[in-house]
Amino acid sequence: MPKLLILSHEKNDYRHLIESARLADLEFADDPNVCDIVLGEPKLIQEALSHLTSLKWVQSIYAGVEPLVDPTQRHDYVLTNARGVFGTAMSEYVFGYLLFLEKKMLERMKAQEAKQWQRPESGMLRGKTMGLLGVGSIGSHLAGTAKHFGMTVRGFTKNSEESPQVDQYFHGNDLMKFAAGLDYLVGVLPRTKDTNQIVNKAVLDLLPNHAVFVNVGRGNSVDESALVNALNENRLAAAVLDVFDKEPLPENHPFWTTPNLYMTFHTSAISYPEDLTRLFVENYHRYVAGKPLKYIVDFEREY
Amino acid sequence: MPKLLILSHEKNDYRHLIESARLADLEFADDPNVCDIVLGEPKLIQEALSHLTSLKWVQSIYAGVEPLVDPTQRHDYVLTNARGVFGTAMSEYVFGYLLFLEKKMLERMKAQEAKQWQRPESGMLRGKTMGLLGVGSIGSHLAGTAKHFGMTVRGFTKNSEESPQVDQYFHGNDLMKFAAGLDYLVGVLPRTKDTNQIVNKAVLDLLPNHAVFVNVGRGNSVDESALVNALNENRLAAAVLDVFDKEPLPENHPFWTTPNLYMTFHTSAISYPEDLTRLFVENYHRYVAGKPLKYIVDFEREY
Repeated sequence: MPKLLILSHEKNDYRHLIESARLADLEFADDPNVCDIVLGEPKLIQEALSHLTSLKWVQSIYAGVEPLVDPTQRHDYVLTNARGVFGTAMSEYVFGYLLFLEKKMLERMKAQEAKQWQRPESGMLRGKTMGLLGVGSIGSHLAGTAKHFGMTVRGFTKNSEESPQVDQYFHGNDLMKFAAGLDYLVGVLPRTKDTNQIVNKAVLDLLPNHAVFVNVGRGNSVDESALVNALNENRLAAAVLDVFDKEPLPENHPFWTTPNLYMTFHTSAISYPEDLTRLFVENYHRYVAGKPLKYIVDFEREY
Repeated sequence: MPKLLILSHEKNDYRHLIESARLADLEFADDPNVCDIVLGEPKLIQEALSHLTSLKWVQSIYAGVEPLVDPTQRHDYVLTNARGVFGTAMSEYVFGYLLFLEKKMLERMKAQEAKQWQRPESGMLRGKTMGLLGVGSIGSHLAGTAKHFGMTVRGFTKNSEESPQVDQYFHGNDLMKFAAGLDYLVGVLPRTKDTNQIVNKAVLDLLPNHAVFVNVGRGNSVDESALVNALNENRLAAAVLDVFDKEPLPENHPFWTTPNLYMTFHTSAISYPEDLTRLFVENYHRYVAGKPLKYIVDFEREY
């Protein structure tokens, strides 16, 4: 009989939701030693790994699973992560900020404060080109929203070309061709040994002055000094960052005061227990039926 | 041979674009008396009406044609207005502002200024219910964007039910049923004798405290005092207004300083000569072929 351990700060929510799903045979347990299934946050699961002597399957409630793919950790179980659940939230975040910038909302608020009936030029998403660094389930959703708004979409991936909403794919040595002339560059990359500082000075130099960089992937993918310089020198119109190399961002980091840098705090997509429970339930049915699980993480590839 | 008069502040752009379309037989003319076709801005056309002795067809470059449907003016020609061209711009505006509010962008900017790593609760469009007051070509586009973001859409119209993206239609006496409990109320109504102050205290009272009202139609549809009161008393989370009963908004109008009122200046959708020329060219081909034109305004209905 499968035994589930929940390791999450929202444990009660998850337990309640999973109970409501009335899964045949599933038992909840608190003793790590007897549990074959763990659902929860990667960091909490990492801390428990040494006690999980019966472990078969971990369902992460996050997309990012760095603490578990870490090469110093055991990898003798099936790890599935959260996919297909953050696309809508990420689309809302990314396109919300792009529209905020294009529609010049701050300028309009200032005009209102000054009681001035002004009609500043505002831009449109329509006709712009977005480049997605990474096209997994989140990137695919972003591509779909970009197409809805009449945009052209480029995708840069290791080798996958899964989303039909991407107009043109680039791989490997074609990073510069991918980046050249983009109106919006959006980072959706996981943290792996291959994604460090992909967004470097050379890439930023290829973007036009009116371009906007948005990062909702992981902070390691950005050369943060190069980004600060580009913004300070107005070689980039704006950056919107939800993720950083070190989180929380150190108090003395230049990002806090860099002009045209809009910062949020790793909140662009929240894990809603309702969404994650749905995903867990679907995978649980596969688990008990002996079928391959969905969204299996490749420990070697690190995502 | 058809003769075209262009009455627009962007006359040169239009002339250049129409010349590029190489329309058979079309002549450009400056003498109003000889022209059977006029393209331009309703107000400028109204001023010229008495000189347009050969007038057969007017193509407005705006959606709103109040100066021409005005009952004191002549109505002995075919008037077509601009439709099918503002939907994308309106979607960008409406969803941009809704996302700005849901994502609490101002709060996040303040946290950044204070160098505070904060994670305020932010809301989502997904799962929300939008009510569209008026579902023509703009409303249909807004409905499509709302569905893309996973929302429920109600539509209130006189009697049309053309957009399949609207989940539920309401008409006539069902305005209160339509409004009850909406998360977002979006006004897309034209100015007619039937649309005065549709958004009154009774309608605003039916919206929950977290609701947002957006108006991209015409200002006459709003009881402005009732809206100010609702915002002052926090019975409405925010209002986003691009249109006003009197434009430009008088300097002493309370809207300038009403809390949680975001004001823009009749700029939510600009008439781009490229878009309008495409529409004009399409209608010109119908005109010379003797076929019914697209987007004919009903003078009686006023839109």
